[in-house]
Amino acid sequence: MTENKLKIIPLGGLGEFGMNCLAIRWQDDIIVIDAGLMFPESELLGVDIVVPDITYLVENRQCVRGIILTHGHEDHIGGLPWILSELNVPVYGTEFTLAYVEGKLEEHKLLDSTELIEIAPKSKFTIGPFTIEPIRVTHSLVDCVALAIETPVGVIVHTGDFKIDLSPPDGKAFDLHTFAEYGKRGVLALLQDSTNVDRPGYTPSEWAVKPRLDEVFSRTKKKLFFSCFSSSIYRIRIALDLAQTHHRKVAVVGRSIVESSEIAQDLGYLDIPPGLMINPGQINDYAPENVLILISGTQGEPMSALSRAAVDNHKHARIVSGDTVVLSSRVIPGNEKSIYRVIDHLCRRDANVIFDDGASGLIHVSGHASQEEQRLLINLLRPKFFIPVHGDYRHLKKHAQVAVETGVIGQAILIEDGDVLEITPKEARKNGKVTAGRVCIDSGSNVDVVEDIVIRDRRHISEDGIVLPIITINKLSGKVESQPEVVTRGFAAVDAGLIENARQIVSKTLEGSSSEEKADYGVIKEKVRVDLKRFIQKNTSRRPLIMPVILEI
Amino acid sequence: MTENKLKIIPLGGLGEFGMNCLAIRWQDDIIVIDAGLMFPESELLGVDIVVPDITYLVENRQCVRGIILTHGHEDHIGGLPWILSELNVPVYGTEFTLAYVEGKLEEHKLLDSTELIEIAPKSKFTIGPFTIEPIRVTHSLVDCVALAIETPVGVIVHTGDFKIDLSPPDGKAFDLHTFAEYGKRGVLALLQDSTNVDRPGYTPSEWAVKPRLDEVFSRTKKKLFFSCFSSSIYRIRIALDLAQTHHRKVAVVGRSIVESSEIAQDLGYLDIPPGLMINPGQINDYAPENVLILISGTQGEPMSALSRAAVDNHKHARIVSGDTVVLSSRVIPGNEKSIYRVIDHLCRRDANVIFDDGASGLIHVSGHASQEEQRLLINLLRPKFFIPVHGDYRHLKKHAQVAVETGVIGQAILIEDGDVLEITPKEARKNGKVTAGRVCIDSGSNVDVVEDIVIRDRRHISEDGIVLPIITINKLSGKVESQPEVVTRGFAAVDAGLIENARQIVSKTLEGSSSEEKADYGVIKEKVRVDLKRFIQKNTSRRPLIMPVILEI
Repeated sequence: MTENKLKIIPLGGLGEFGMNCLAIRWQDDIIVIDAGLMFPESELLGVDIVVPDITYLVENRQCVRGIILTHGHEDHIGGLPWILSELNVPVYGTEFTLAYVEGKLEEHKLLDSTELIEIAPKSKFTIGPFTIEPIRVTHSLVDCVALAIETPVGVIVHTGDFKIDLSPPDGKAFDLHTFAEYGKRGVLALLQDSTNVDRPGYTPSEWAVKPRLDEVFSRTKKKLFFSCFSSSIYRIRIALDLAQTHHRKVAVVGRSIVESSEIAQDLGYLDIPPGLMINPGQINDYAPENVLILISGTQGEPMSALSRAAVDNHKHARIVSGDTVVLSSRVIPGNEKSIYRVIDHLCRRDANVIFDDGASGLIHVSGHASQEEQRLLINLLRPKFFIPVHGDYRHLKKHAQVAVETGVIGQAILIEDGDVLEITPKEARKNGKVTAGRVCIDSGSNVDVVEDIVIRDRRHISEDGIVLPIITINKLSGKVESQPEVVTRGFAAVDAGLIENARQIVSKTLEGSSSEEKADYGVIKEKVRVDLKRFIQKNTSRRPLIMPVILEI
Repeated sequence: MTENKLKIIPLGGLGEFGMNCLAIRWQDDIIVIDAGLMFPESELLGVDIVVPDITYLVENRQCVRGIILTHGHEDHIGGLPWILSELNVPVYGTEFTLAYVEGKLEEHKLLDSTELIEIAPKSKFTIGPFTIEPIRVTHSLVDCVALAIETPVGVIVHTGDFKIDLSPPDGKAFDLHTFAEYGKRGVLALLQDSTNVDRPGYTPSEWAVKPRLDEVFSRTKKKLFFSCFSSSIYRIRIALDLAQTHHRKVAVVGRSIVESSEIAQDLGYLDIPPGLMINPGQINDYAPENVLILISGTQGEPMSALSRAAVDNHKHARIVSGDTVVLSSRVIPGNEKSIYRVIDHLCRRDANVIFDDGASGLIHVSGHASQEEQRLLINLLRPKFFIPVHGDYRHLKKHAQVAVETGVIGQAILIEDGDVLEITPKEARKNGKVTAGRVCIDSGSNVDVVEDIVIRDRRHISEDGIVLPIITINKLSGKVESQPEVVTRGFAAVDAGLIENARQIVSKTLEGSSSEEKADYGVIKEKVRVDLKRFIQKNTSRRPLIMPVILEI
């Protein structure tokens, strides 16, 4: 049966921040927009990254025509290695986005096997029944695009991440005209970034940080350390501009920021005059007031260059009394402790630390549209259907309300990960669900899934430790050999008396069991577990993970 | 040798937020100001609370004369059960503060054995060489005091937590006059709350939330749920006032807020007219627009009334479409995920959720002095020595700078937990250190210390799981019996092949060991651990905790 409905199926990013991934399907053709990751909350113990569950794509692998990337941030491209290892499809992205993707795929040895296709604003391309035009938008990163997708039922616009920066530092303007034209011709559905829907007004331009940073450069009489997200190319550009103006040579310290600024320089986003840059090893050859050190580690990552410099454990970046350290970034929730730990260390070294404390002047701006920018784009596009993307449920809901209040849309529709939204030129409605959720990944040398049960075990052990009663049973006679052993780890209430009593509890359980029970290891393990659990809870009020082990000898 | 120096020795709260505790010593007399706890960061797995290390007090137990509490918040009284179980000394506090303390001590069965002494503003009392006057201050809690302590070297003032609320809802004014008088007579040292030193200007009065809340009451056409910190008596008072004005009956739901409002009512801080309160069971007897439900759980605590109501799992508090939920509190860093999870659930039920998102108008105010209030108190007291308390190092440092800029102090001195500050009428200087630090507590039925090694083990296991090679050795012959067993838990990369190979690795290690080595269980365990670790890392890039177990049979 051929269906004449377009399906929009979000697989990530609608109901949480991060791991953005959305499928658009017409009959037997699926395109995927973005393939992001999410950094795990602390309760996901030992998990490195979280990616969307792509069961739906895998089950429909013969239909998936490609992944189109809106820009190069981790929450839009970081899930690629995982997805591509399951599903080898072409990846579309702008020049800068693909440069980031290449590094990532190389790391995972997927570069050779992946087809990367460069796209550019104003250059339409076709995938099956879809004709796609990338439209230049502005964001905190360079070379970002929205996507206008002509489908058999009408035009779907996906904004990607955006703000409307009317003076982007690279002079590449937000393409208001193309959006206006699509709006004039008619847009069936708009999927728009909800991230900053809580903020009224407009988000400041990337330039807006320059006056305050200029002041910091002027006032600093010794070394200046400048830290920002390594992908903040605009910010790096502004720092380099100021370094020239204030006669400082620039050293770049920290792997991520070195790599990122090299890519930006190669692609023409950083125009560095000869003689400006120095090697980290040359820092001491210059007077402190003539040096700027770009350094990675705004989030207090323990192994980052800045964290190490803060405890005087970096070969080249030495921070001394009177130096200034600028953290031109936001405090990502969950990172407070590690960031403030670094700041405290810097204060103890008597460095002047300038960070986004709400009182230091504007040293960081968001890359996402505030309400007025969201309303402006809605006014330009006047979509029949409005679908908020990127955010927790409350953001999506508020964004729907913001859209309705503009008075220019037909209908706002709230969907979440896994919902199937069917669209015809006349109507849009939810119809059914596909598998969706998060997959926890341990990114060692391989990309391995961490099962829920493993995380549950870790969480259980991490609360109260683990207790292992070990029982030796003679394989031939079926009899218990010698005294049971009880070992523990991470268990707080341990003392010799308790362990001895625990051993006796296990012995008693074994004595009270029939030989049939003892022959069925499942049964005997469960009996031991239950009895020991009761004993430990009664005596310590704790609930360690109890894991009986039977050894056959 | 009799020393003629006063010693100020912070044991907690100087270098972190929380677990405030500070000792003042003159010769053989020690008084302690506050005995707080801190809630653990998430990396302290399975730890319930963190309290200051009181080794110094225990080692000088014959000198400790008492603990004086400035107010009843957990970061000032929460460590009492722990300290009193080590050190039975009298506890001084105002009426309201002691009411909270009583509940806490009863829970820990320490109430009968503890001497509680009520103090009041303007009533001096003497402990050994110290004459102490509590001075009324304002804060987010009621019945809070600063302490002016006359010592043999001069007057020391400790502010406790404070803001200068010029219109406190209970009409009990901040005692500017007494502070002014001490300032006129001369203050040797001022220890002042640093919490809000990052905020310029003045902190708004507790009343400041009323206009916005009044608006919310006016607009809400269905049930209104109001959640605040259970100790926010002023906030509860304002909510009750508004309930009367807007003709809503009030039900209180949640243990902590029920207890707290009962104490406040008993002590006259809440004046509740007859007929205002209803039982939670009566909620449905009234029209939705005539009900206010005070409910606990602003921080998304999983078992709180609000969290349960948000997923429709509370007997009396049912939240339906059109109801309004107000979270009149701040988002404490670290709690974002759980709070936003609750808010998302409430949004899905189509409730109108109003929380402190920076855009909802003033629905919460801080209880701590901003810079201008800090400066005002410094101007009133004009201390010779200024010592910032309560904050991370960067706050203390900034606070010292704020104080110096007033131009009215002699000298600002930065000390941290464990520093010994010696003061004479002429000078103040750091001289040595005492043991200080944090103690992790697992607060089950007993108050038990969780050792660092236990937390390290938990953290290790929580990252990559645990692997246990189990070896049976014949006690008599010293020979290894049967094949070694390898069991794992919380280990992601587990498969049958890997386990089988791991067993062979252990076997090989055993075979390659001499009988002397096998007789020394420490040696053989370490050999097995090292070999297995190498094997697992090489094959999985993971570092589970490896814990060899030897069973003698």
